[in-house]
Amino acid sequence: MVDDTIKQIDDLFYPKSIAMVGIPSDPHSPVAELFLNPIFEFDFEGEVYPVNPKGGEIMGMKAYPTLNDIPNTVDYVIATIPAHGATQLMRDCVTKGVKAVQFFTSGFSETGEQQGKSLELEITEIARKGGVRIIGPNCMGLYCPKGKLSYWSEFPKEHGSVAYLCQSGGNSIHLVQMGAPRGIRFSKVASYGNASDLNESDFLDYFAQDPETEIICLYIEGVRQGQRFVDALTNATRKKPVILLKGGVAEAGARAAASHTGALTSSNNVWDALCKKLGIIRVYSLEELSDVLVTFCFMPALKRGNTAIVGVGGGASVLAADDCENNGLAIPQFPKEIRDRLLRFTPQAGNSVKNPIDSQLIIWDPEHFLETIKIISEWDGIDLIIGLLLSTDVYPSWTSYQNMYEIMAKTMLVSHKSSKKPIAMVIQPGIRPKMNRETYAAQQEFVSAGMPVYPTASRAANAIKKHIEYNKWKEVSF
Amino acid sequence: MVDDTIKQIDDLFYPKSIAMVGIPSDPHSPVAELFLNPIFEFDFEGEVYPVNPKGGEIMGMKAYPTLNDIPNTVDYVIATIPAHGATQLMRDCVTKGVKAVQFFTSGFSETGEQQGKSLELEITEIARKGGVRIIGPNCMGLYCPKGKLSYWSEFPKEHGSVAYLCQSGGNSIHLVQMGAPRGIRFSKVASYGNASDLNESDFLDYFAQDPETEIICLYIEGVRQGQRFVDALTNATRKKPVILLKGGVAEAGARAAASHTGALTSSNNVWDALCKKLGIIRVYSLEELSDVLVTFCFMPALKRGNTAIVGVGGGASVLAADDCENNGLAIPQFPKEIRDRLLRFTPQAGNSVKNPIDSQLIIWDPEHFLETIKIISEWDGIDLIIGLLLSTDVYPSWTSYQNMYEIMAKTMLVSHKSSKKPIAMVIQPGIRPKMNRETYAAQQEFVSAGMPVYPTASRAANAIKKHIEYNKWKEVSF
Repeated sequence: MVDDTIKQIDDLFYPKSIAMVGIPSDPHSPVAELFLNPIFEFDFEGEVYPVNPKGGEIMGMKAYPTLNDIPNTVDYVIATIPAHGATQLMRDCVTKGVKAVQFFTSGFSETGEQQGKSLELEITEIARKGGVRIIGPNCMGLYCPKGKLSYWSEFPKEHGSVAYLCQSGGNSIHLVQMGAPRGIRFSKVASYGNASDLNESDFLDYFAQDPETEIICLYIEGVRQGQRFVDALTNATRKKPVILLKGGVAEAGARAAASHTGALTSSNNVWDALCKKLGIIRVYSLEELSDVLVTFCFMPALKRGNTAIVGVGGGASVLAADDCENNGLAIPQFPKEIRDRLLRFTPQAGNSVKNPIDSQLIIWDPEHFLETIKIISEWDGIDLIIGLLLSTDVYPSWTSYQNMYEIMAKTMLVSHKSSKKPIAMVIQPGIRPKMNRETYAAQQEFVSAGMPVYPTASRAANAIKKHIEYNKWKEVSF
Repeated sequence: MVDDTIKQIDDLFYPKSIAMVGIPSDPHSPVAELFLNPIFEFDFEGEVYPVNPKGGEIMGMKAYPTLNDIPNTVDYVIATIPAHGATQLMRDCVTKGVKAVQFFTSGFSETGEQQGKSLELEITEIARKGGVRIIGPNCMGLYCPKGKLSYWSEFPKEHGSVAYLCQSGGNSIHLVQMGAPRGIRFSKVASYGNASDLNESDFLDYFAQDPETEIICLYIEGVRQGQRFVDALTNATRKKPVILLKGGVAEAGARAAASHTGALTSSNNVWDALCKKLGIIRVYSLEELSDVLVTFCFMPALKRGNTAIVGVGGGASVLAADDCENNGLAIPQFPKEIRDRLLRFTPQAGNSVKNPIDSQLIIWDPEHFLETIKIISEWDGIDLIIGLLLSTDVYPSWTSYQNMYEIMAKTMLVSHKSSKKPIAMVIQPGIRPKMNRETYAAQQEFVSAGMPVYPTASRAANAIKKHIEYNKWKEVSF
């Protein structure tokens, strides 16, 4: 049974034909664009059949009045019809022999009303009896770049190794978009909403065995089958890192989760204990989730976090050191021998070589900056380097300084090659749009070089610390 | 004596004449641009005398070989010479009858070396005997938009009510730049570095009595006169809110602070106890400092934080509710009577009216969205509203959706007028530069309307909670 489900889910990520039921005949309507644009953007290679009672053509494709008018087999139905049509559609899907239906449609158990709950039960029963699987209702569906399947036009086309199981459509979009410029790429994403049929455990079991997935992250509001989910987590954590963002932990959050996906949430302490026991990396926001993903994707598996901080700016160094130590990364002072070697070419005024290193060499003497990185990275006392690139807004932007930020970014990027230890970059995003463009461009260079990039030292340290804790847990537990 | 110092500091923020000693003759050198450009940018109205051994002209101004060659009186000297010339310059300042010298020059006690420490003592002694005050050494100096005095070309020209005493030049620049698009304006900023003469207590006493200052914020690495500083804080907190960012709290941070400004830091617990006793609002990053300033500048003095959350996006609402509750703001459920009133015009599918309110009316039916705000804001159970505007990256950006973000932003902005309670806005910054430009533009509209804007719900809730705690402390303590 479980193996059947795994095979079924795998098919869904690679459907050969999709019917879009409920696409308005106006191709410029939001729903038409929302669901049809990704088909074109991603060059989906299978068949696509818009279904609309009026028939005709939508975006150059023949539209069919009903599902049963489609002359060929249909693997997968994406439903954007109103809730009151769901029962009939479900019956049509059984007749047509469809493998699965994804309901974008909302108005089910998440309303909290008896009517919506009954409707959800009804379609689920028809589906189970008829051998059709449901994704949702009340969800965005599936993204699988390798299968050229997406529910969002602007998602990356390239695939990666992260699977994301997300109960919220919006939170699925936000994380993928946030992760894109940081180099995070996904094997598969499932936005699964109310989980009336295929639920969190089904998808988790699937991702645990999926050869295309190396890291699993979850946004979960509530769980349909408690014990089964614990079993699925136990299995998944033995095979891959699992990162969890639990939504609806506080009172109002839980109430909102109930209204959002009909989820019954359970106590925060239960989740905490579970995470601790199973080595699940728990995070508390989408931002933190993206930080941790960046770390797992681009940092080696360190088991100690002694850190050297390198950058320009005395006050920024002080705060970065505080941020690291407050987040559990030690910043050991360099021994006298190393400081002496650095002082041979580092002017004392305006610089510091103790750790943090606050060094203007990065601007005025790049060669010696590279030498600095080489020297400190050879010291056994540190495991990694955090490089600081302040926002361009704190550098003068007139004539002769114009390239200062560019020079610093370039020197830091090259220094990566002379370092014996991994470098995690903190690139503060520019505050004003002009500056933001520059810091974004710099970020892209570092990401292309395969480096982890974070917006603040505090977020970098927090994510790196969680990675180290996971690596230590894994060593002890396996 | 104290009153003399206050008068002296006041004069420094409004100097009538400035000599710039150590300006290179090449007007495009970084130091020349750094210090001379603000003179032109801010239309400084007093006299400016560049001093350079070669004489001649710099940027159209006559340059004098030495300070004593200047035919007129000089109020204020900005020194950018190397450290070894500091003693001679200090003697020249005494001869010339200068009121104060600001040393951008570094290479003093912050090096940790005996030579630098002795040099700092030496210039300080000459200054004291000769009746000249020192700002720094190793600092950026003074910003006073009303006095048309600035050390940074790109600082806002408009003045405000926040005074900022900052031991770090870089951290002074970063906060002012970060605060600018959020509407924070300053009465005066002092970057005071090693504090060899004028120190944190002198400036704090000044700001406490300054009629142009309503809120005081401090970035302090270490304190020169411990008991005097406690007295100065006691006095200041009785008059104005005081917000403290203490740099150098952890081990490496403290070491970095010593290398940065020669500061001797003391235990974190001592600072915590002091803040608690005196009602000082303690923050832990420049970002948090700017959040708290935004709140003090743009939120009324609430004493309870029951919050309604309003926006679009189920998952975003769940996380925002968690963020608020985790940061101490309650999100009470609306009573049935209010929910019923909202359900008269809010479709059940895809929306929620319990609190958080997740309502697509903001896009499709702005009139009823305004009605929603009016109805909930009249309920006694809430004290404020947090409005959520997700990043533009999570809205489709094709033809027919193009204006979706604009419509939402506009509706939310107008709703501010139908609300009986203050609205704090969460505007997620766009991830990609194009989107960032749009979110930045939206932010500017809200800031122009006098509204507090934050980048995440978690940062909004944290700052609002600290404000409320201060308001309650103030009520009990005075």
